Amino acid sequence: MAGKASRSGVIFRPHFKTHQSLTIGRWFREAGTRCITESSLVAAGYFASDGWDDITVAFPVNLREIDQINRLASKMNIGVTLEDPAQAAELDRQLKFPVDAYIKIDTGYHRTGLSLDEMPDITGLVERIHGGSKIRLKGLLTHAGHSYHATSTEEIIDIYRSSVSILQAVRDNLGETDRKLILSYGDTPSCSIVDSFEGIDEIRPGNFVFYDLMQMVAGVCDFSQIAGIVVCPVVAVHPRRNQAVLYGGAVHFSKESIQLNGRNLYGQMVEMDESGWYKPIADAYLVSLTQEHGVLEAPEAIIKRLKPGAVIGIIPVHSCLTANLIRRYQLLHGGHADYLPE
Amino acid sequence: MAGKASRSGVIFRPHFKTHQSLTIGRWFREAGTRCITESSLVAAGYFASDGWDDITVAFPVNLREIDQINRLASKMNIGVTLEDPAQAAELDRQLKFPVDAYIKIDTGYHRTGLSLDEMPDITGLVERIHGGSKIRLKGLLTHAGHSYHATSTEEIIDIYRSSVSILQAVRDNLGETDRKLILSYGDTPSCSIVDSFEGIDEIRPGNFVFYDLMQMVAGVCDFSQIAGIVVCPVVAVHPRRNQAVLYGGAVHFSKESIQLNGRNLYGQMVEMDESGWYKPIADAYLVSLTQEHGVLEAPEAIIKRLKPGAVIGIIPVHSCLTANLIRRYQLLHGGHADYLPE
Repeated sequence: MAGKASRSGVIFRPHFKTHQSLTIGRWFREAGTRCITESSLVAAGYFASDGWDDITVAFPVNLREIDQINRLASKMNIGVTLEDPAQAAELDRQLKFPVDAYIKIDTGYHRTGLSLDEMPDITGLVERIHGGSKIRLKGLLTHAGHSYHATSTEEIIDIYRSSVSILQAVRDNLGETDRKLILSYGDTPSCSIVDSFEGIDEIRPGNFVFYDLMQMVAGVCDFSQIAGIVVCPVVAVHPRRNQAVLYGGAVHFSKESIQLNGRNLYGQMVEMDESGWYKPIADAYLVSLTQEHGVLEAPEAIIKRLKPGAVIGIIPVHSCLTANLIRRYQLLHGGHADYLPE
Repeated sequence: MAGKASRSGVIFRPHFKTHQSLTIGRWFREAGTRCITESSLVAAGYFASDGWDDITVAFPVNLREIDQINRLASKMNIGVTLEDPAQAAELDRQLKFPVDAYIKIDTGYHRTGLSLDEMPDITGLVERIHGGSKIRLKGLLTHAGHSYHATSTEEIIDIYRSSVSILQAVRDNLGETDRKLILSYGDTPSCSIVDSFEGIDEIRPGNFVFYDLMQMVAGVCDFSQIAGIVVCPVVAVHPRRNQAVLYGGAVHFSKESIQLNGRNLYGQMVEMDESGWYKPIADAYLVSLTQEHGVLEAPEAIIKRLKPGAVIGIIPVHSCLTANLIRRYQLLHGGHADYLPE
């Protein structure tokens, strides 16, 4: 991903909310990454403690955290995301140090941000920001999260193109001095499928660090790119219904599911050996999750070889939420990696 | 719930997995509770550290945790849940101190346990347990989790009655010395709806300590019994689509939803003042959750009074999972309550 960003001449500002690990962050640094994205100020502070000094918090600024913003802004480049003029003005008033700011643009996901047909609001926000003294307007930022619901890679490319053209149109509608604002683009599906990034200045994918079952089933990644699984003890086996029960439930996987053949599925079993996992097992899925229990349904031959006390590997549906629940990593080459402490 | 158990002459062994808090556990102790249920050995150890000395772990025993089992069994009454003869034999072999044991009976939920039509397996397991020296068989235990999917309180009562009669039939089919085994019954919907507990010996409800939106919508509790909400900052307001965005996402609520009028809903907004919450707001629901974002959709009049920086209260869909994610409680009468540390 870093190489692709570099070949396209765009800034690579990966989202670290998926792994939230200083250890894994250092692997990025070894690959040349210097600036990152985070989803909370707490996480930004965690990475700041390991020397990261250019962090965009891609979440609408929460004024209740002004002390943390000022603390970080006193020593590093912290970027905030804005969409509300009153909030921008209040932030400016309460800031003690300069921050970078990005205006959140809604390119079709309709979660946060201002859309192209709200151009007067965008212009008003830009003016409000320029009217203050502490906020340095750096760019327009979008997260095309609707790409996660795309049913084909063609649709993902369409979402990417349409989102980029909306970002460009918004910038074109601004005054001349603001036409140098950078265009910052997020989301793993687009950044994985698109070959080269034309017309934007920065990408912020996050999930690609591990990928997961959702991305694999959507055709965004292949099995060889799945970089994290959950290892679960088997606690009960029910051969009559081709099921086994795992110590691995909603408190480990979250209740995220994918729909496949009319069923909700919560994870897929993989073949494992001492060196890792090497093959997804066909028709071997978690079919329900409760607080600590996960129910695996699998072909007879698979269930037959399971015994209570064994461990099996499961590709999670959504690696970001799963990592946030498990909060530790066992590394294949030995040792462990940290996760943002609570 | 303690009073109802007492009036029915059954043991009250509440499940503490919902709150996982020593502080809240002490409120139970003040109400006379002496024995409890837990879902993991880690949590059992946590409550043991606060003087609880009679804890059933209502989860299929995980032999990988034998050291923790022995540590707890050395100093207190620890109960384990069994359903596999080989596992029971291996547990007996590895135990250094006696434990209580319950055979998990499947009364229709089909998650774990042995069912009435597997009577030979149940008898075989009983014999295997009696053949060892460390496991004291105490009872037959069920969790009628299918009551959570019931669509009426009548259906919940039916599930309760049918589950109890299955437990009794299993016991009746055992040898004479095992007919004194206790019958232990779980699940909040049944224990909330049933007035008196005939024919069983113990109840283990958990969720009732807080209840939640799922239970309220199912008619298991009413609003006045909702004992925990999530307070979320508003970070963006979108009046044109009657939505506001909260700092409150899947990492706070889990992705549990209820279906209402054909939509998936993730929480309901309440009216709050300094002393707490006092009214659910009609048609004001969380309509989507992503990692940190929650999208509230509400009538125009509600959205109009929201501003970034405000906080609002949300009844979670599933309090057990939400408490597990938030991991701290602010108490209405001041101060905080703990949650099982990671």
